Amino acid sequence: MSEAKSMNIWESWPVEMPTAPELRECKEYQYLQDEGVQREMASELRDIAIKTAHSKFPTASKAAIILKGGMESQFSLYDSDTDHCTFRQEAFFRYLFGINEPDCYGILDLERKESVLFVPRVLDDWQRWHGAALPLDYYTKRYGVTTTRYVDELHTVLQERGLELLYVLRGVNSDSGLPTATVVDFAEVGQYKVDEKHLHPMLCEMRVFKTKREIEYMRVCNVVSCQAHVYVMRHIKAGMTELQCEALFKAWTCYFGAARHMAYTCICGSGPHGSILHYGHAGRPNDRILKDGDTIVLDMGAEFFGYSTDITRSYAINGKFTEDQKAVHQAVYEAQHAVFKAMKPGVSWPDMHRLAERVLIQHLIKIGILHNGTEEEMVAAHMGAVFQPHGLGHLLGLNVHDVGGYPEGTQRLSAPGVSYLRTSRTLQPGMVLTVEPGLYFNDPTLNKALANPDQAKFINEKVLDRFRGTGGFRLEDDVVVTEDGIINLTTLPTSWQECEAVIQAAQPAQRK
Amino acid sequence: MSEAKSMNIWESWPVEMPTAPELRECKEYQYLQDEGVQREMASELRDIAIKTAHSKFPTASKAAIILKGGMESQFSLYDSDTDHCTFRQEAFFRYLFGINEPDCYGILDLERKESVLFVPRVLDDWQRWHGAALPLDYYTKRYGVTTTRYVDELHTVLQERGLELLYVLRGVNSDSGLPTATVVDFAEVGQYKVDEKHLHPMLCEMRVFKTKREIEYMRVCNVVSCQAHVYVMRHIKAGMTELQCEALFKAWTCYFGAARHMAYTCICGSGPHGSILHYGHAGRPNDRILKDGDTIVLDMGAEFFGYSTDITRSYAINGKFTEDQKAVHQAVYEAQHAVFKAMKPGVSWPDMHRLAERVLIQHLIKIGILHNGTEEEMVAAHMGAVFQPHGLGHLLGLNVHDVGGYPEGTQRLSAPGVSYLRTSRTLQPGMVLTVEPGLYFNDPTLNKALANPDQAKFINEKVLDRFRGTGGFRLEDDVVVTEDGIINLTTLPTSWQECEAVIQAAQPAQRK
Repeated sequence: MSEAKSMNIWESWPVEMPTAPELRECKEYQYLQDEGVQREMASELRDIAIKTAHSKFPTASKAAIILKGGMESQFSLYDSDTDHCTFRQEAFFRYLFGINEPDCYGILDLERKESVLFVPRVLDDWQRWHGAALPLDYYTKRYGVTTTRYVDELHTVLQERGLELLYVLRGVNSDSGLPTATVVDFAEVGQYKVDEKHLHPMLCEMRVFKTKREIEYMRVCNVVSCQAHVYVMRHIKAGMTELQCEALFKAWTCYFGAARHMAYTCICGSGPHGSILHYGHAGRPNDRILKDGDTIVLDMGAEFFGYSTDITRSYAINGKFTEDQKAVHQAVYEAQHAVFKAMKPGVSWPDMHRLAERVLIQHLIKIGILHNGTEEEMVAAHMGAVFQPHGLGHLLGLNVHDVGGYPEGTQRLSAPGVSYLRTSRTLQPGMVLTVEPGLYFNDPTLNKALANPDQAKFINEKVLDRFRGTGGFRLEDDVVVTEDGIINLTTLPTSWQECEAVIQAAQPAQRK
Repeated sequence: MSEAKSMNIWESWPVEMPTAPELRECKEYQYLQDEGVQREMASELRDIAIKTAHSKFPTASKAAIILKGGMESQFSLYDSDTDHCTFRQEAFFRYLFGINEPDCYGILDLERKESVLFVPRVLDDWQRWHGAALPLDYYTKRYGVTTTRYVDELHTVLQERGLELLYVLRGVNSDSGLPTATVVDFAEVGQYKVDEKHLHPMLCEMRVFKTKREIEYMRVCNVVSCQAHVYVMRHIKAGMTELQCEALFKAWTCYFGAARHMAYTCICGSGPHGSILHYGHAGRPNDRILKDGDTIVLDMGAEFFGYSTDITRSYAINGKFTEDQKAVHQAVYEAQHAVFKAMKPGVSWPDMHRLAERVLIQHLIKIGILHNGTEEEMVAAHMGAVFQPHGLGHLLGLNVHDVGGYPEGTQRLSAPGVSYLRTSRTLQPGMVLTVEPGLYFNDPTLNKALANPDQAKFINEKVLDRFRGTGGFRLEDDVVVTEDGIINLTTLPTSWQECEAVIQAAQPAQRK
């Protein structure tokens, strides 16, 4: 990479978006735009997939892995000829072929250790709307495959190569419970031996462990989402709507990082809305007006060329935390940092969740919201899940809630708190996870605890009342597990002191 | 509406986005945020639907119109638990009920002339993620229906009301060829008489003719998309990517107009890409870098609370048109204005298309690209469709390509040019259409014409070569047909002189 400037320093952050010449000098921008990086990343993953298949599949003889990509038709906005949104590639296909175009197929010829990409043959009329058909050679070079053919040649190519056994993707996503959405269904598939058993678990497991290239890529994606968070932080003020925070975040990530999609719907919960974990959906569309004295939970991350980022910052929007706000924020901050410190290979993720809950409980005792018992008694009564009714974090990659959380033979734990985890695995190098403790004052959840004598006895309602309706805080970073600890990909102001400094330092013109 | 400032004056346009207090004073912003406006719009439409059904349906006795809304499940990003994008309501449901939440039903009780909205009953666990369930009364007040019940009470409510006949929506979209995407399929539907014949044509026809309230609403939506176009126009310069134009457009419409969705994928075709009609799709993702001397076709419109805008501006990005660029731009401008002048009730839309083609041909002769024949001969040889290979415009409303273009018994014309039209109707008051002539230098289309002796003989290749690879221009406004002409909802710099003035006047800081 050339000697480019980095914009990854929040202290000197520009309030306005960079101009075109500035932008082109930024190494993050250059890296994300570099087609070579994406090509090499997918090529390496294909090599690993072929190698793994050779060692784990019943046979590689006359056999191929075959994947179908996402279809344009899956994006129709109901019966209209418009799409929900611009096409987004299916994650497994993106993983091995790197291409973000609809209606493709791809094979890994296991015997020859080669890859073939299949793209749709386009009609004259299609070209009038979408541009001249590109030569097949363009795809071969751009995506680094062995060769490219048309989708209607799929059967012919399989025959030419003497392939008789197809490993196809079939499985259930452990987060959504949905089956694989891209089913290999070309006309002649019935003429082949089909193995539906081995590919899905193999690819899920591969996706859990990121390559160096993927980690570098995810780091840069993370930098851009972090920059966008700072952009919001420097513009936020009373009188704005929550949605205007979303607008500024999207503006930066699209302008700076070419992100046309968010990895997930932006959660911009101000005031009491901070306690709604997935606030911001169509029914609660980030439409509250920010008030002086509010806190806000901003859980926003863009998708960059297929890869997801997932980052939350929470702060007092006026840049001046009250003593109560400081105490709650500090609890979450310390829970997160305790986990950072403890994370390393061999550690169980549910134990990390329990650690975060324990730190939160310690602080809740200190604040006075919890009383009448020991820390151990409160842990045993699951008081952590009353104030943090979600898992500590999840695997992250192409999907926000990435695959591989519960491989075959494993299952969710049943106790409150850890039951919310999207994985109960033991940490290993190469895993990328979010670490996102939170502390919320959510009325339905609190009322349920107060109705349960085993939990109610620990709650000091008089103190709690001071916090009711104030929402809460969540802090979420994306981290990589290394040989002896973690690398945090998320570099952002986090503590209440850091947030105050950034918000207060924003140019006066932006703060009026 | 209060005495609010309007920001609809492009001459005094702020280069930066308005601050929160400024924004809240803008009448466009206030209007779009006003839930009362949306409630009254849908209430009036329900009244019209009930009245029309009484006059056109076989019976209103013991009968109801029933509609199913869009489903959350239709938005799944493949097998993951994330969505393609934030939920967007199905257009017919939005039309009559105004609500943008998934998994609802609605009925219009024709006998009682009442409306019932059905919302999903939510589980405890849903509330943890999405917020406390809102009381049914909230929906009744917010959307102005007679009453609100839970979806699981649908059969009970139909029984309570003694309803025996259900008019359901079933038909094919004449643009996409797709069947109705929201099929009424509650468990007990088999116990009712079902009429699939009358509702779809009736509602399609209703949607063709906008109410005064809808037109006012679409006007304000249009103002915000226009503002966003000016925002882009004042920031555009060589060195930016096409996608950064998209980023700025989306930023403004979301920040200013609470638009979380584009009505369609942004088309930002610079240089040669200007000739690709639907450039900007995933395979051509607006990734070219703008060069000094380029022209650009920016076809971008946001969706505001269900309603689509569809606007194109084209200009020289450096604010200085060359003589050739001026000549081509002027041709499109005059074609558009000739159509504006001729549009009124009773005029056939294909005739308007032919008028635009004729003006383009006149200019192509003047420029010297067409020669060796009379205007009439060139019209007869369909030379218009060689340079404008698309229809003049289409119905616009909740959908970008709105319904009702080809009612039962009508069909597309077959001649080149007019065959591209999405409607061949005769203009009537209340119709909203786009008027979008264009003139492009698209190599595949030109080569086809040059290979056809009947067309090639009119083309002066030597002059044409000067324009090859320069893309083209399209100008697109949204207009309402009135009793004696049209009202143009799109107020934007359009002519090359106006574009030059705006681009050159943008603050020096933005132009460096």
